[in-house]
Formats: sequence, structure tokens, C-alpha cells
Amino acid sequence: MMVTLRKGAKKKEIEAVSEKIKALGYKPYVLKGKDIITVGMIGECAEKYKEVFESMDAVEHTSEIQKPYKLASREFKKENTIIKVNKNIEIGSKRIHVMAGPCAIESEDLMIRTAEIVKDAGATIIRGGAFKPRSSPYAFQGLGEKGLKYIKESGKKLCMPTISEAMTVEQVGLLSKYCDIIQIGARNIQNYYLLKAVGKQKKPVLLKRGMATTIKELLLSAEYILSQGNSNIMLCERGIRTFEDSTRFTMDLNAIPVLKKLTHLPIILDPSHGIGIREHVGTMAKACIAVGADGLVIEVHPRPEEALSDGPQSLLPDQFKTLMEELDPIAKAVGRELLV
Amino acid sequence: MMVTLRKGAKKKEIEAVSEKIKALGYKPYVLKGKDIITVGMIGECAEKYKEVFESMDAVEHTSEIQKPYKLASREFKKENTIIKVNKNIEIGSKRIHVMAGPCAIESEDLMIRTAEIVKDAGATIIRGGAFKPRSSPYAFQGLGEKGLKYIKESGKKLCMPTISEAMTVEQVGLLSKYCDIIQIGARNIQNYYLLKAVGKQKKPVLLKRGMATTIKELLLSAEYILSQGNSNIMLCERGIRTFEDSTRFTMDLNAIPVLKKLTHLPIILDPSHGIGIREHVGTMAKACIAVGADGLVIEVHPRPEEALSDGPQSLLPDQFKTLMEELDPIAKAVGRELLV
Amino acid sequence: MMVTLRKGAKKKEIEAVSEKIKALGYKPYVLKGKDIITVGMIGECAEKYKEVFESMDAVEHTSEIQKPYKLASREFKKENTIIKVNKNIEIGSKRIHVMAGPCAIESEDLMIRTAEIVKDAGATIIRGGAFKPRSSPYAFQGLGEKGLKYIKESGKKLCMPTISEAMTVEQVGLLSKYCDIIQIGARNIQNYYLLKAVGKQKKPVLLKRGMATTIKELLLSAEYILSQGNSNIMLCERGIRTFEDSTRFTMDLNAIPVLKKLTHLPIILDPSHGIGIREHVGTMAKACIAVGADGLVIEVHPRPEEALSDGPQSLLPDQFKTLMEELDPIAKAVGRELLV
Amino acid sequence: MMVTLRKGAKKKEIEAVSEKIKALGYKPYVLKGKDIITVGMIGECAEKYKEVFESMDAVEHTSEIQKPYKLASREFKKENTIIKVNKNIEIGSKRIHVMAGPCAIESEDLMIRTAEIVKDAGATIIRGGAFKPRSSPYAFQGLGEKGLKYIKESGKKLCMPTISEAMTVEQVGLLSKYCDIIQIGARNIQNYYLLKAVGKQKKPVLLKRGMATTIKELLLSAEYILSQGNSNIMLCERGIRTFEDSTRFTMDLNAIPVLKKLTHLPIILDPSHGIGIREHVGTMAKACIAVGADGLVIEVHPRPEEALSDGPQSLLPDQFKTLMEELDPIAKAVGRELLV
Repeated sequence: MMVTLRKGAKKKEIEAVSEKIKALGYKPYVLKGKDIITVGMIGECAEKYKEVFESMDAVEHTSEIQKPYKLASREFKKENTIIKVNKNIEIGSKRIHVMAGPCAIESEDLMIRTAEIVKDAGATIIRGGAFKPRSSPYAFQGLGEKGLKYIKESGKKLCMPTISEAMTVEQVGLLSKYCDIIQIGARNIQNYYLLKAVGKQKKPVLLKRGMATTIKELLLSAEYILSQGNSNIMLCERGIRTFEDSTRFTMDLNAIPVLKKLTHLPIILDPSHGIGIREHVGTMAKACIAVGADGLVIEVHPRPEEALSDGPQSLLPDQFKTLMEELDPIAKAVGRELLV
Repeated sequence: MMVTLRKGAKKKEIEAVSEKIKALGYKPYVLKGKDIITVGMIGECAEKYKEVFESMDAVEHTSEIQKPYKLASREFKKENTIIKVNKNIEIGSKRIHVMAGPCAIESEDLMIRTAEIVKDAGATIIRGGAFKPRSSPYAFQGLGEKGLKYIKESGKKLCMPTISEAMTVEQVGLLSKYCDIIQIGARNIQNYYLLKAVGKQKKPVLLKRGMATTIKELLLSAEYILSQGNSNIMLCERGIRTFEDSTRFTMDLNAIPVLKKLTHLPIILDPSHGIGIREHVGTMAKACIAVGADGLVIEVHPRPEEALSDGPQSLLPDQFKTLMEELDPIAKAVGRELLV
Repeated sequence: MMVTLRKGAKKKEIEAVSEKIKALGYKPYVLKGKDIITVGMIGECAEKYKEVFESMDAVEHTSEIQKPYKLASREFKKENTIIKVNKNIEIGSKRIHVMAGPCAIESEDLMIRTAEIVKDAGATIIRGGAFKPRSSPYAFQGLGEKGLKYIKESGKKLCMPTISEAMTVEQVGLLSKYCDIIQIGARNIQNYYLLKAVGKQKKPVLLKRGMATTIKELLLSAEYILSQGNSNIMLCERGIRTFEDSTRFTMDLNAIPVLKKLTHLPIILDPSHGIGIREHVGTMAKACIAVGADGLVIEVHPRPEEALSDGPQSLLPDQFKTLMEELDPIAKAVGRELLV
Repeated sequence: MMVTLRKGAKKKEIEAVSEKIKALGYKPYVLKGKDIITVGMIGECAEKYKEVFESMDAVEHTSEIQKPYKLASREFKKENTIIKVNKNIEIGSKRIHVMAGPCAIESEDLMIRTAEIVKDAGATIIRGGAFKPRSSPYAFQGLGEKGLKYIKESGKKLCMPTISEAMTVEQVGLLSKYCDIIQIGARNIQNYYLLKAVGKQKKPVLLKRGMATTIKELLLSAEYILSQGNSNIMLCERGIRTFEDSTRFTMDLNAIPVLKKLTHLPIILDPSHGIGIREHVGTMAKACIAVGADGLVIEVHPRPEEALSDGPQSLLPDQFKTLMEELDPIAKAVGRELLV
């Protein structure tokens, strides 16, 4: 971190900065220009003291030189993290895995029927929400534990692992009992108690970036989970909020190469929420594969016009099947595999 | 809601839209232009069926005509909501109330000392965080229940009501025991279980807009609380996230006149978090009063350079005192009062 | 367009809206709900009267039902526009064309050398800036007409068409004399005199979306050019501005499927400016091909560390050659071709 | 500027950075931490070489320590710039000046009538557009030179200075002939030839921030004008683009204290465009005065529902008169004056 002083800072104030740096156990490096004085403080986690210096009246600003997270960084762990979901499924290795299913679990029958459809098309993981974060209190809120039972049943029947979302600390226990992967939704990206709770259990976690979460904050949220002992984390980009309103969100594919460089964790992409318009989900899915996704989340519903949630972005069974066939050659073109 | 069909939609498809509208208990109005057909569906809560129609292949898009929330709206309740915090303090009436104190409660002594300072300057409510949402897991996380005891003690000693933040459903019980107002932070604006939990108890709630929350979503989050029976809600603008990086956030004062028109709930502004730079907090506070705030949240710390959280945006005691004196004539100029 | 009246609008006010609609040559459709009255006005270009109604005190808001542009729309022209740059190069057909070269033309020698390099790797169009829009007045501003001579020379020598940017109305004449395609930069997307000027000449135009330009505004800017008689327009996405600061801009790939549906014009993508970080340009270029680009713009410089502009995002010759080889199979995977 | 090297950078690469710094005439300061090496380069305009270093493969990133503009900065000129528009009107001194009038000049009669109205209410400068930047080519584009004659006539008749917008280099000559202040619109904030053109003439310039212009870029655009010899520049905030769509733009009042600290130039605020909704313009104007505006731009139209441009945000004569009376006590409360 570099601590830059205000023009005209007094000798005493410069010394105060240096003393503070020493008191925190670092060595200060004073750089003097004609008009400017900046003091370096280099070393592990120096950046976490940013506010200490910005609170001093003589300080103009600070600049980060190092990263504020550690366990999530490539510096800490060079090789890619590969997450073993079961004996057949490893996320982060050559094969790209597709997690597909309805937005919300609506009935046992629908859950199983959709699972059969997506398995048949090449998906390897079943998704479906039992606890649904809805912006309106009057919208369908999910079936709760009953929904989890249905998805578990489907997984067992079709020999596929399952993923569903936990919205509270208490639900983490239920989720780790019924499902193979626990999803933390975009709205809970900075729900730190929830992050700690999934960090304390063993099931892999899919952590969705929020609509206004920077890449740095996403990695700090992952660090919350890692710091509790669980390193099986997939990061998921699902669209950020921008001024453009012709799509539901703006999927930020730029984040993928940046994340791949900064962290060892696998990256999943969710084009269904990202663009939020059914007819464009497939096109975005192609870009996701090309940009280096380790997996995709795609919403599929046999009758979207009757869906209780997110119908407008859910693919029809036929659309999903065709899409999987179109994605396969792109996966090969970037040295990965999808349908096997 | 208007449901606009794709160019070339077939008669059968148009009829399907009309049938669906009837099935939902509304009356369809078909408008035909030369190239375009749009079907109206007007009536209470029609907007909540938006996705049903957007999921239909023949539908190009829908346009909202009415609002998706109800209890929070001026249509539902014309006159301003006034929240009685105690027998002296009413939020939403002529007097503007300032909630001031440290970002985090750090010790009993500091809490009481700061409370004395802010009371002396004219603040009427004590603020301080016991549970702190911090983006890094390595940053100070707050004193927890011990902190709540300290703030309650301060409130008792100085005869002032208190406000602090709840981050989980369990903490809601603690907060309603120790404090007079419960704050829901920006990061929990769509933590719906938490919203329901504060909706089920009686203490007033300060609901902070998230960094990427639209005005509509903010009102829908308030609707979650209202729908559980608690109508003592203050909405709080505290800065949104934009491309501009020379301030910590971009405080959105435009939202105030818009909210005042849409809702009967009082509006509080938090310039400390909003701009996030100590030397500019006061200037923004002036604008907040002029734009119609019913109250302010301001961070004050006797020694910000030793603060464990948000030091760079906390005012010094003298700065706060001077600011309060400067705000008073602005309050009068807009027909309100501050120092009495 | 739907014109929604304020709650409690008087009969006289409703009639005034209907009268105004009739006066403008349209037929009003009045829809009455229990609490709400909305009046439809359907027909060509109705949306352009939006402000007329929003200016009326009794009007709550208006909703667009139809599009405000015409010549740029798929409704106006169903089949894709194909732009013949010369007898071999058609943009918008099966083959994807890559426009490559240095950000700024720095010398004749460098221009020719770079052109040879990019041709050898498979690029078909030479790019290079003679007039450079730089945010600082102290930065290199381009060689001007001399630069245009160098790029023309290079094009002649290598039998390749060329593209360069016009920043003023006067430069349009120079550009159409020296180059085969005229670029309008992101900063001039709403420089309407410049748009009209390129609309009045015959050379194809590459129109870059601005950093805060909506898709609707981009199409309206294209409409300015189209309305002057030039329909050889390529739209170019090159990154928008968002809160995320770990990339130079946020390239908005979501815009591609949306634009492909709304307009018949070909779409070019510029990953060099879009992400702005050399080591990530290639990854984004892959996503661009997968998402349906009709062409790419890529900055290449033999010695980026000596470049006078945009060095950090320019590819080295070897990187560019490797990238072109990697892009080819992706192009095939989406039914296009690149290297022939 | 600090140049931070990639982890594992070789000795030779570190030396290359130091050598480059020396070659540019600066002194390198090497700071070594356990894992990180960063090299300081401190001195005037060092920041303009940012790209040189970011282009080097061994460089991880650079951090700005100093500012990239000079003439516009407080470091260069400590005391506020005061602009003498005529012998009575000084912008940047104690009195706040209001520039008011229609968005577009529509007729001589309307121009004069509106000028009388705004003068009567206390405005001191007449505004009106003769060349109009409209997003649609089918919208009214302004009366051109004829409009300028009308506004000049009005100014003469009422003894008030006038302001109107120049959109091209050629119009700058016309504007400096007919008007007292030349406006550069938000869409031309990075039209560098236009900036240079107004920098070469003597009339004061009102420079509007673009919808996605950072504060740093705004100051760099002012630097373009300053570097040509004209230092009579007013900066104008008029709303930026964010995700919030319930207002036309998001007026960024946070920019005002930040700008006041960074630059000596006066700051004007345009609440009409900023929020874009008539009934809320007045409320925002109050906040503008409180936050420290040196002047306001407000659109007034005697019959907004017949306005050819921006009707929905134009105030009615009575509204404007009332507003001016309401603003006056706020001006006094912040130590300024408005009505004299």
C-alpha cells in the first residue's frame, strides 16, 4: 500500500505516518517528489490497514499495491482447484458440466420429468430452487423442505448430483442433508453469517456474484468461506446491473479471464439469469463456453408459460437439447469437452 | 399491464393471450395498430403476472402501467407515516432527527463518550454497530451482544433512543430487546427472511437501500416488512454504485423526491456512507436537508484514526458540532427544524 | 405508446389527452381500470410524441410499445445487410473479417510492417488511427493526413482495404479519400453533425457504441446515418462503463443477440478496447466469435511498450498469429469461417 | 506513479523498469517486500507515462499517485476562478446566478416572452438552444442561426447575457458572435476539436459533464480548453447514467465537493436535465444550492406541453417564480446570495 500525503504535509505528520507503519509491524519507505510525498508499506495484508491511514487528516489517499484476500488467490495456490462432486463428476477439470432444471421446484412430477429431459440432453447436475428469493412478497416463495425432498428423489432416481439454494443459516443444514452442492444466491453475496455457515460444512458451494459486486469483493466473499475451512467453492457470474435496460442484467464475461488469473477456484456461468431472455440464452451460453467456463447453470422448464418463477428465461426441452449439441463443438474448439 | 405481441402473431395466439387474461380474473382490451397488437390487462396487482405473459412465445414484451407494491404506496395511504420512537421523538414530522455515533461500538467508554458528544451537538438518536458486515473476513466484526449492552447503557444514561443493525434472523430478537430502532443494512436489502423477521416484531425499522437496488425494489423490500404487520419503516438512501470512483459511493439524492411521491414512509439519508470521505460528509449533509430528508445518519468518532471501522468517513466531534449549526438554518429554509 | 393518467385525473383532462392524440392523426383507445386510466396511441412513429404527453400535468407516465427508429429495424428490412467493401470482402456474410493494426499510425515503416504481420496471420482489413481522441491534451494526438497517406500506401501494397477514424466533419472528406471504411469513435456516437456527414458520402461506416450508449440510442445514431442515404453501416460494441474497475471497460456481449434481433446491420466487436488488457484480449475475442460477431477489431503492435497509444492492450505479432489460429475452429463451430 | 511488478519478475525486468524511468527523466525508487516489488516514479506529469509501463510484460499494474491534469488543478491555482460575464455578472463569487429559458428557441416571440418571465423571477442569464443534439433524427433539430439572432435580441432588450450551445467547430464562431457564454453539451465532452476551438476564442465556456464521464476525465476535458489559452470555464454537472431508471439521469451531487477541492473553476448545476422530471426539478435545485453550486441552469417554458424539446422537464412560469423565492433563503443559509 502507498500512503500519499496532502501537499504541504508537515514533517511531524509524515513522521506520524511512518511511526504508525512501524507500530503495525511493517517498514515504511518514504518517497519524496518535488510536490508530493508518498510512503510505502509493503508486506502481507498491509492493505487491510487502508482505513487507518485514510482516517489521518494529513493523508490525501492510499493506493492498493497488493491484494486484500489470500486463500482465494493464485499466489496462495498456483494450480486450479478441482471439486469432486461425486466419483464421476469433477468440476474444474477438462469436462464442462451443465447444471440444469427449473428455476423453482413446483411438484415432484415436474422435477423428475425435467431432470429426465436435461439428463437426456447431456446435463450432469440437477438444479431447482426450494427456497426462492423473490423481489415481491406476493410472488411464489418456493416449496421449502418438501421441494428439497423432490430434488433429492430425482437425483437418486437418475444418479445425478443436485444443487439448490440456501437463504439462511438454518437452511444450510437442510441443504447439506438433501443436496450435493449448496448455492448462495446473488442477493446473499455479502450475507456474511451465511457465508461462514457454508464454510463450516463440507458440501461444495456455488457462490453467485451479486448485481453490484466487484471482482475483488467476490473474492473476499469466497475468502469468508475459505477461512472457515471449506475450499470447495465455485464462483458464478450471473449478470451485473448497468444502465442498459434491454436485457434483464448485463452478463460480465470480462470477469472470467480476470478471475482465472487471480484465483484457483473454478468458474461457473449462468446465462439464464445473466441475459434473462429465453431466445438469447443459447447465444450467451456459446460465449460462456468460449470464454472459459468450467460449467453452466441453465434453466429448463417443460412448460415455461406455466412456470411459477423465471418463465421468460427458461428454455424449452427441445431448445435445451439443440443448445447442448451446439455447445459441444465450441467446447472442443477451446480444448474442453461437454457431451461424452 | 400492456402485453405487446410479436409482429405477425396469429389470431390463435392473440386469443390465447386474451383467454389467459380472463382466466386470471381480468378483462382483456385488444388494441390493433397497422403493424402492432397490444392487449391491456388493467386491475389490482396485474403486474405480478408479467412473467406469465413474457413466457409466451407470441409475446414481444410487456409494459408496466401500475405499481407492483401496494401497502408502501401513496395510493394505499395518502398521508405521511409518522413514526413515534418514544414520547419525544417522532420521525416524519416537522423536526429532522439526526442519528449519530461511531460506525462500530468499540468499548463502553467510547460509546458513552461519543453519545455525550453527539447529544451535546443536537443529535437525538444514538447509533453504533454491534454486528458489522465487513467485506473482508479479516476485518473487525463487531462486539456482538456486549456491544448492544453498551449502546443500551448509553441510551439509558443520556435518555436517548438507540439504533443498531441486525444481520440475521436470530439477531432480530436481540436487537428488539436492546435497541429502539433496528437497522437492516444495504447488503441485506434482499435478505427476505430477515425482512420478514423484522416485520413480525414491533420496533421501528430503518431499511437501507442496497448499492444496486432500484427504487421499485426498495419499495418491494419495504412491502415484505409491511406485509408482516410492521408499518414503522424508514427508508434510507446511503449511496449506489456507479462508474465514478472518486467517491466511495454515489449518493442518489434524486431518489428522495421520487420516493416522497411514491410512498408515505419517512426518508432518512446517510451522507457518511453515501460519499464516504470525511471532509465531504458535511457538504452532502447540507444537500440532504435541502432535498427533504426526515432524518440523517452521521458517523462520529472522537479519534477516527483509531477507529476499528469506517474511520475515513467519521466526523471529529468539533466537525459534527459545527455541521449541526450549519444545518439548522438550511432546515429552517425548507420549513423544517433541527436544533430546538 | 400508452399514456397513463394520474390517479384522480378529471374527465376534462382525459378528453384533452384523447383530443391531442386525434390532433396528431392517431386514434385514441381509452382503457379504464378501477383505479387507473391509460390511453393507447398506436401507429407509425407514435413514440416520437412521448414528450408531448409527458409534458401534460395530468399524465403520470408513458410506456413505449413500438420502436422509435425505423430504417435500422428488422421490421423495415428483414434480411441481413451485407456490406461489400471490395470485390473480395463482404461484411455480414459467412466469413468473419478481422480488422487489425496499431492503435495509432506512428510511422510509414511501422504501418507497413504491422500490416504485413496481420495479413500474414489472416486479417483482411488494416486498421490504424491518424486522428486520435485522447483524454489528455498532453498525449500523442496522431499524425493527421500524413498518417492517412501511410495507411493508404500500406493498403495498396498489400491489397487490403483500410479503416481509420474521422473526428470532425472536415475529416470525413479526407477519410473517404484515403480509406475504405470510416470509423466513428465511441466518443462521437452522438456527434450528430458528424453522423450526418458520413451519411452523405458513400464509404461504409463503422459506428462504435459509446461508453454509456443504450442499444436504443445506438440504433437511433445509426438511423441518423441511414436517414442521409448511406446504409452501409457496421455497429461496433467496444465496452461500456460500469462500476467494475478491474477491466478498462465492461464489454457487453449481451448486446449482440439483442442487436441481431432488432436490426439487419452487421455487428463488429472490439475486444482490444472492450477489456483493455492485453493478456485477456484473446479470451474475449473467442467469446466474440461464439456470440455471433461478423467481424473483429484487434490492436496489434510489433513493440507495444514503445506504442504512442494503447500499448497495454495491443497484441504482439506472435500472440495475434496464435489467436487467429485459435479463433478459426470456434468460427467453424458456430457455422462461420475465418481463415480461408 | 507506482509500477508494481508481477510476482517472480526477474532482476533484468526490474532493471528494465528502472532504466525506462531514468530514460524519461525521473528517478526510480525500488521498494521490495517479501513477495512484491514496486517501483516509484514521482514527479510532474509522471502519470502520463502509465501506458508505457503497463505495456511491459513484467508489469502487473500501475497506481496513480499524482493527478494527470495541471492547469485545472488547485495545485496550479489556489484561489477560485471568477468569471466576469459582463460588468454586473461574475460567476464564482458570492452571488449564485441562474441561467433560465426554454430548452430550444422556437420563435422570437416565445424567446422574448420567456426571457421576460425568467428575468422577472430573478434569473440573470438567458438560455436557449439554437442547435439541438437530439437522439432521434426525426426530432426538432433547432432553428440554427435564426435562433441565435432571437436570443441575442432578447438579451439586448432585457440587458441580460445569453448562453447557447455549439455542436461543431464552425458553430463556435457563430456562437461567440451572438452569445455571451458558449455551452459545450454532455454529448460533446470528449469532442476534442470542439474543445480546442472554444479554447482558442475568448468567450466563457460552460462545459457539461457527459453521462459516463468521470470527474478526472471532466477535468482533462477542461484542460484541453485551458491549454489553448481560455481559462474562463464553468464545469456543469447534469446527471450521469446509472442502473436507476425512475429518473431520466442520476444527478451526481457528490461530484461538487470533490470538484471544489480539486479545481479552482466554478461549478454550475443543471437540475432540469439532471433529474428530468418537472415536478422534481425544484427539489433538486434546492439541494444544488445547498451543496455549493455557483450557478444553476433551469429550463422554463410558458407552455411546456407545446415545447418542441424537453417539455416534460421544463418549469411553468409560476413554478419558476416560486422556486426562486424558495431558493433564496437556502442560498443565504449557506452564505451565498441569489435574489438581490
